[in-house]
Amino acid sequence: MQPVLIAGQWRAADASDTFQATNPNTREALPPRFPVSSWQDCDAALQAAAEAFEQLRSVPREKIAKFLRDYADNLESAKDALVESAFAESGLAKSPRLADVELPRTVNQLRLAADAVESGDWTCPVIDTQAGIRSCYESLGPVCVFGPNNFPFAFNSVSGGDFAAAIAAGNPVIAKANTSHPETTRLLAEQAFAAVQSAGLPAATIQLLYRTSHDDGERLVSDPRCGATGYTGSRRAGLALKAAADRAGKPIYLELSSVNPVVITPGALRERGGEIIDEFLTSVLMGAGQFCTNPGLVVLLKGGESDAFVEAVAKRFNEAPAGTLLSPAVAKGLSSSIQTLTDAGAERLAGDGSSASDRCAVSNTLLRCSGEQFLRDPETFQTEAFGNASLVVVADDLQQATAVLDSLEGNLTGCLYTATDGSDESDYQQLAFALAPRVGRLLNDKMPTGVAVSPAMNHGGPYPATGHPGFTAVGIPTSIARFAKLTSYDNVRPARLPCWLADKNPTGKTWRSIDGRWTQADVGE
Amino acid sequence: MQPVLIAGQWRAADASDTFQATNPNTREALPPRFPVSSWQDCDAALQAAAEAFEQLRSVPREKIAKFLRDYADNLESAKDALVESAFAESGLAKSPRLADVELPRTVNQLRLAADAVESGDWTCPVIDTQAGIRSCYESLGPVCVFGPNNFPFAFNSVSGGDFAAAIAAGNPVIAKANTSHPETTRLLAEQAFAAVQSAGLPAATIQLLYRTSHDDGERLVSDPRCGATGYTGSRRAGLALKAAADRAGKPIYLELSSVNPVVITPGALRERGGEIIDEFLTSVLMGAGQFCTNPGLVVLLKGGESDAFVEAVAKRFNEAPAGTLLSPAVAKGLSSSIQTLTDAGAERLAGDGSSASDRCAVSNTLLRCSGEQFLRDPETFQTEAFGNASLVVVADDLQQATAVLDSLEGNLTGCLYTATDGSDESDYQQLAFALAPRVGRLLNDKMPTGVAVSPAMNHGGPYPATGHPGFTAVGIPTSIARFAKLTSYDNVRPARLPCWLADKNPTGKTWRSIDGRWTQADVGE
Repeated sequence: MQPVLIAGQWRAADASDTFQATNPNTREALPPRFPVSSWQDCDAALQAAAEAFEQLRSVPREKIAKFLRDYADNLESAKDALVESAFAESGLAKSPRLADVELPRTVNQLRLAADAVESGDWTCPVIDTQAGIRSCYESLGPVCVFGPNNFPFAFNSVSGGDFAAAIAAGNPVIAKANTSHPETTRLLAEQAFAAVQSAGLPAATIQLLYRTSHDDGERLVSDPRCGATGYTGSRRAGLALKAAADRAGKPIYLELSSVNPVVITPGALRERGGEIIDEFLTSVLMGAGQFCTNPGLVVLLKGGESDAFVEAVAKRFNEAPAGTLLSPAVAKGLSSSIQTLTDAGAERLAGDGSSASDRCAVSNTLLRCSGEQFLRDPETFQTEAFGNASLVVVADDLQQATAVLDSLEGNLTGCLYTATDGSDESDYQQLAFALAPRVGRLLNDKMPTGVAVSPAMNHGGPYPATGHPGFTAVGIPTSIARFAKLTSYDNVRPARLPCWLADKNPTGKTWRSIDGRWTQADVGE
Repeated sequence: MQPVLIAGQWRAADASDTFQATNPNTREALPPRFPVSSWQDCDAALQAAAEAFEQLRSVPREKIAKFLRDYADNLESAKDALVESAFAESGLAKSPRLADVELPRTVNQLRLAADAVESGDWTCPVIDTQAGIRSCYESLGPVCVFGPNNFPFAFNSVSGGDFAAAIAAGNPVIAKANTSHPETTRLLAEQAFAAVQSAGLPAATIQLLYRTSHDDGERLVSDPRCGATGYTGSRRAGLALKAAADRAGKPIYLELSSVNPVVITPGALRERGGEIIDEFLTSVLMGAGQFCTNPGLVVLLKGGESDAFVEAVAKRFNEAPAGTLLSPAVAKGLSSSIQTLTDAGAERLAGDGSSASDRCAVSNTLLRCSGEQFLRDPETFQTEAFGNASLVVVADDLQQATAVLDSLEGNLTGCLYTATDGSDESDYQQLAFALAPRVGRLLNDKMPTGVAVSPAMNHGGPYPATGHPGFTAVGIPTSIARFAKLTSYDNVRPARLPCWLADKNPTGKTWRSIDGRWTQADVGE
């Protein structure tokens, strides 16, 4: 049985049960056995994390940056083994996906986080010389990270965006592996722990559990020693954790389900329907559609252009091989969601609903309903079908399309394709007015998959896409603020201020707001 | 019966009951009767607010700024009537408190909010020209504001900090009056509504209810039409609202109880004990101690200096007249909290526990316990005694004092008084290390009352002082972000961007982060 990493030791878990991952390309269980940890393991991890947190508060930022860089280097060195493992556990393509896209992205995030640690821009220093008050963000406490199944590297609880942000803010991380790729997570944690040692961080800066009971998960995120939680995954599990954390007054950041509406006007289809079909197919079938920002809902206006779009997409769906899904649970969930949608009256245009027996796969599925159908039961028609499926809503007219958008709950993204000649500009204005308040990111003429690691990115959005409309899970330094605490220093003697708030700019290049002006200068300069 | 303000009409409430405020200086009911609104009123207000929100999204920012400035002017014109009413309902001194401190502060906050609306700095624009992504904060939706009893103007639900922040972000406000000063709130709302009209804002931008059942309050903050809530008041009521809002995924910002620990070292007392006693007395007895940041817990180290401090303070407490408390409920709550503390073993050094019969008042109360006592039951000894009372904890030594700080829950503020010659600097470091993570604002050599309206202010802090450690309720533009939504614009055509994200700086002076540099320039300049 594989060991957990607690308090700097790879040690046998106090296990209540065991589990194995499944190879989605064979539906066979993978050999390594992993423990389901008892509360005793959770408690030990929390205690060690609380102590590591106190130590980290005095650790020079250079060491944290070195950890992030060493870890990034280690991941590049261990690339082959990581890719093999992630492929076996997720079925995602070794190349380009795992080796050439996701691992480089992961490494890049860690290095950007290291830059942020060094520049200190994430601390957002504000200095009011007249009032004698200075504020900045500071570390918050141990962060529990629950990673999703669909990014074994880039959102992994021990290497992904939440992890990098929590560490950059100076917090220890208790990683809860996604149970669909525990071995990959263990391999990542080995590299992380080696970097903890080479950088000289407290040994419990990184800890790893593979699985707990639901009850213990809820105790973990609401424990007094927990500072905050980052969770990416299913809505049901996420909302149960949110309820527990909320009751205890603990911040929790969630990235839950999203259908990512894409509206395409007849004008856009007339002008460049072929291109848009290609873009849509790439976006919706890539990685078997298993992206948080997968375009699961397409809104069209009744007419010949839309009919042609639907017909062409259905044909291509039927022709394209069905990608391998991440796990038996994902395949089952996808079939079940499709069933929910067809039960509600959606018409099946592509995909016979068949599941492969020798691997995890469901035929590419295109569904259609009318705007009227959608508006009669918007909740059901917004069921997320996670995977290679999409629902097309054909509205009678612009008013009905707008009503469909008005009926949407919070989403991560919303896209609008319109004519480039501006002939449907007033339609755009009406549709965008309805869509923008319901999404974290509004796109024009572009599919939603592909989440750039940019300070201007919002990988977030209104509830229930996330738990708070003001935070992003992707983007550095912006995502770091989630795991930080705002502290004002009022009349605090100069020598006692955190370096970010001293008169002298600690790096010579940290951006600080001094008396209402953003500057890299010293105070009084 | 006084009318409610719903959908631009001062109209009779759909009332389930009525109530009157009490003059705390006479314990007599004040004449005006106010309605307890039914859900029908709440529903009507929510509906009108949702419609006003959609309208506000297209209103030029100049009109919102004009509203805030017109309202500030109106308040100055109506000063005499407002001060009379607030005095009758709160017992707070007409001068300097109400007329010369609190009203000017309120007017100043509104004008600062107007400046923020015009400059747009609160939208925090981030532009990544390479990735083609731009983000900013935008309005969120109707905001419910529940104001506290202790600031009839500056934190009033229809004129205070939460109100100004919510409006500045472009949201309509549904104000729930504090039931101890409904007439003052009605008078303020009259001025606000006049400004809504003179500025040409949607009529339902400001609405006012006086009271609802607890159930209806919980429905209000969790209604789909509600964008967010700001609440300042008691912990019990606040946490009930938080639970309801959390379940619905609605942001709620709370400012709850806080004992605001003040640590004074023997070195500081030796050096300037007299001064510190004066500062403490002013802070703890001013306004009968009814401030969120009232120093309710003083931590001293055993010894002659501390004995002298306690003796002098007790004498002055006994000599000073007991201030009038805000309401019979506050007087009752204060007596009850003092009883809880003495039941737990705190020794009464000043104050015989007597309540006045002809007005709301409790004798100035100084309590003492040992560090050991405190550590045996830190939860009970942290009971907030809201009003003119304070608990002194005398620790055996530095280690025990540090343990007392380590046992504290989240507070708004924490103060450290040490010797100016640096002789107890290492003690400071140890105490501040324990105190800083538990408070929103750390002060040196200064009492916590007096919350400057500064962009560097954090009037916030870890739970349960507030609901989230990353936000401040005071300070402009910083407090505005609470009532905003982050939106990324990805590949959005230039002419369609919000003005804050256009290439051209919309004001010529808005601070924006362009490709990692904060600047007031245009993109590409």
